[in-house]
Amino acid sequence: MNRPLVLRALGLVLLFEAGSLLPALGIALYLQEKAYLAFVLTILLLTFVGLPLSRRQIPVSDVGYREGFVIASASWLLMALFGALPYLVSGAIPGFIDALFEAMSGFTTTGATVLKDIESLPKSILFWRSTTHWLGGMGIIVLTLALIPSLKIAGLKLFRAEVPGPNKSKVLPRVAQTARELYKLYIIVTVACLVALKIAGLNWFDSFIHTFSCVGTGGFSNYNASTGALNNPAAEYIMIFFMFICGMNFTLHYHAIRGNFSPLWRDPETKLYLAVTLTACLFISINLVSMLGYSVGTALRQSAFQTVSILTTTGLTTADYTLWPTFSQGVIFLLMFIGGCAGSTAGGIKNVRYLILAKSAFRQVAKLIHPKAVIPVRLGRSVISEELVENVQSFFFLYFGLLFLCTLMITAMGVDLFSALSAVASSLGNVGPGFGMVGSTANYTAIPEAGRLLCAICMLIGRLEIYTILVFFSARLWRS
Amino acid sequence: MNRPLVLRALGLVLLFEAGSLLPALGIALYLQEKAYLAFVLTILLLTFVGLPLSRRQIPVSDVGYREGFVIASASWLLMALFGALPYLVSGAIPGFIDALFEAMSGFTTTGATVLKDIESLPKSILFWRSTTHWLGGMGIIVLTLALIPSLKIAGLKLFRAEVPGPNKSKVLPRVAQTARELYKLYIIVTVACLVALKIAGLNWFDSFIHTFSCVGTGGFSNYNASTGALNNPAAEYIMIFFMFICGMNFTLHYHAIRGNFSPLWRDPETKLYLAVTLTACLFISINLVSMLGYSVGTALRQSAFQTVSILTTTGLTTADYTLWPTFSQGVIFLLMFIGGCAGSTAGGIKNVRYLILAKSAFRQVAKLIHPKAVIPVRLGRSVISEELVENVQSFFFLYFGLLFLCTLMITAMGVDLFSALSAVASSLGNVGPGFGMVGSTANYTAIPEAGRLLCAICMLIGRLEIYTILVFFSARLWRS
Ligand SMILES: [K+]
Ligand SMILES: [K+]
Repeated sequence: MNRPLVLRALGLVLLFEAGSLLPALGIALYLQEKAYLAFVLTILLLTFVGLPLSRRQIPVSDVGYREGFVIASASWLLMALFGALPYLVSGAIPGFIDALFEAMSGFTTTGATVLKDIESLPKSILFWRSTTHWLGGMGIIVLTLALIPSLKIAGLKLFRAEVPGPNKSKVLPRVAQTARELYKLYIIVTVACLVALKIAGLNWFDSFIHTFSCVGTGGFSNYNASTGALNNPAAEYIMIFFMFICGMNFTLHYHAIRGNFSPLWRDPETKLYLAVTLTACLFISINLVSMLGYSVGTALRQSAFQTVSILTTTGLTTADYTLWPTFSQGVIFLLMFIGGCAGSTAGGIKNVRYLILAKSAFRQVAKLIHPKAVIPVRLGRSVISEELVENVQSFFFLYFGLLFLCTLMITAMGVDLFSALSAVASSLGNVGPGFGMVGSTANYTAIPEAGRLLCAICMLIGRLEIYTILVFFSARLWRS
Repeated sequence: MNRPLVLRALGLVLLFEAGSLLPALGIALYLQEKAYLAFVLTILLLTFVGLPLSRRQIPVSDVGYREGFVIASASWLLMALFGALPYLVSGAIPGFIDALFEAMSGFTTTGATVLKDIESLPKSILFWRSTTHWLGGMGIIVLTLALIPSLKIAGLKLFRAEVPGPNKSKVLPRVAQTARELYKLYIIVTVACLVALKIAGLNWFDSFIHTFSCVGTGGFSNYNASTGALNNPAAEYIMIFFMFICGMNFTLHYHAIRGNFSPLWRDPETKLYLAVTLTACLFISINLVSMLGYSVGTALRQSAFQTVSILTTTGLTTADYTLWPTFSQGVIFLLMFIGGCAGSTAGGIKNVRYLILAKSAFRQVAKLIHPKAVIPVRLGRSVISEELVENVQSFFFLYFGLLFLCTLMITAMGVDLFSALSAVASSLGNVGPGFGMVGSTANYTAIPEAGRLLCAICMLIGRLEIYTILVFFSARLWRS
């Protein structure tokens, strides 16, 4: 373990967070909100801790994926711990656990909230709250792509060529270059969404808040009734588009904006993602028209928004889907477990993993009929390694294992089984809203405090794709 | 595909079913119940169809596992179709789908019922209903062990030596020998349970019904309030013991009754099974004492009965667990997904699969830290093949994939999401009772007819361990 490198990276992360607080501070000063003091204090604290760490000398040798796992896990933890301070110090959220929950929910782009009356909060606090989504979204794209060869997520080919072989010291420059390319792309998408929402008639503040939510697939809104409060169909369509875009693999966008569309057309994960979206949208629309008598237009718009919002694990809502017919609820519940694509800001199990799982299962049946047949698992034109297949299969098991274990812990706090299950599923998938006590219009205060802390931990585990956090807490890592 | 062999085997199965109807016919004649006509008719029909098939000449060559898959799938289907006739013809269950549901529930040892007033039925019909459990339990033990090398279920060593290599023609005599040994064992356990229950004070009829339920881990009772109606703690303890025994791998019993206890003590699956039982029982007891103020004795007895009944996927109940505190409900819900041991009459995913899944997941984390390490998955002293690991992982994926898909189909019929989820989970795991609309005291009539048919299909898929039925419906099988 290269400790100096890890500490220096974490120092830089903290300084970056300090800088990210400046826009919220600016808003507080401009609107003369008292919360400015909370921002100043947090910025000073972050600088005080981050600056000495960032000045450390680092040896170039012996830098590998192990350091990446530690940096990723510790970054999200530290960002959330310090990011909770503005809520706590300003008094917007009294209580450390709740402030941490809100910050973790923000940075993991989950969007679950403990706030009962969002609209009563200072605008600067709401802006910081949504900024955390944007930062979290940026972080996860870079993390996923940087750690890709070790996390073994398939279908990401852009930076494959730069992946170093046995020479570990090349990891750092590669991460840096990867990051630079993707920051640019992420900012382009952000600006496009922001401008589009402004043109659709939203004010700048609403545009910023909803852009951060869509681009980071986060889910925080500045209205108690979420996006529904805007009552702006044009803005809804724009958000559907951007949520969908941000649930896709960003390397495909990277090629597309350079005029190379063939990776996009050929990508099997994108095809599945699109197919799931269209199927779910169609099924829910038919269900809403036939059961609730909605007009086709309304049904399509509401179903498209909720489908894309839940599938991309954004969690913004324009309708209370817990009041929909049971079938539509079932579809929404299922979407929570699917999620977006690898290399996006979306959470969940992700489409590419389902492709690999389905193909491997299909192969098992074929092998039972022809025991001697050797059948590789293919994704598009490439053959998936057996190691990756097992990695994905274990991921699936760990995901459901964690889901059941944490659900059980929350039922022990007196929460009913289905609410507990949906709260954990929503947290682990970084979705935000769930069913029952944590339905689309509810907040997480119905879950006891210990349960909220557990949900926050699930958000972190889900965001870091389970393995990262398991490696971080593995005694084996710290011994080696 | 060796068609003559398959047809002959199915003919023998039908004749066997005809013979199995004789005790119920005897009871009908003795008690002068009109249902005797339904039994006579079914027996004649089974003989009429089965006899010509069983007389077919079979070529000895080219007999393999493919035939095994077809025989297994078709046997359960035919047994249930013909086994539904007594219900239908006697008028005990009007409606073909419901009669089929009850028969399928019986033969798959699920124990879910569509009967609203069980106690009003003729005793001969109730006896036949419970006989199906006993037959299903016997069938599954033989099936699992006979098809073991192809289904790749680990931990079953007894008949390993007799597994033929490339010489396919040895499958048939091996199956026959395996079957003979296990029939004996199964009958010994049955007689022991029957006598024990009689001594505990039950009448012969109640003893038979509950023995069939315990030994087949079935769940049908002859009382509307299930085993609770007996109000006999001694009988409850006896049933706990026999349900637990029948949820264990029968090959371990085979060794044990010959005085060789070391396979039993060393078996990792049995250790996990015992650990799960004790942990769940303890947790629920504490929960019942602290939340409902039960005495320690009552809490232990109720928790032990319900824990063992659900874990072994029997489904008999002495208490309505849906009225227990949420944590106890959560534990019961989780147990439904665990199930018993491989090579038992129990359903569910099974303990040995969880052992393999957990060890493989642990290895994934170790591999991320030491990418070059080669770490085999061990079970006790033996190393598990990579093929088996992937087989188990795909099983887990298919299980949850089917669970979600069928749940969605049942929500489309207007059933609430959690009831639909628990009905499918209970059917797929061959448990019987569930939560919500299909709670421990409820029957399946709250689910629409199409949903009941789907549940019956899930029971069959679950009983045949998914792969068997997938192979059966695979076009590849019939082409080759
Ligand atoms: K979200
Ligand atoms: K059962």
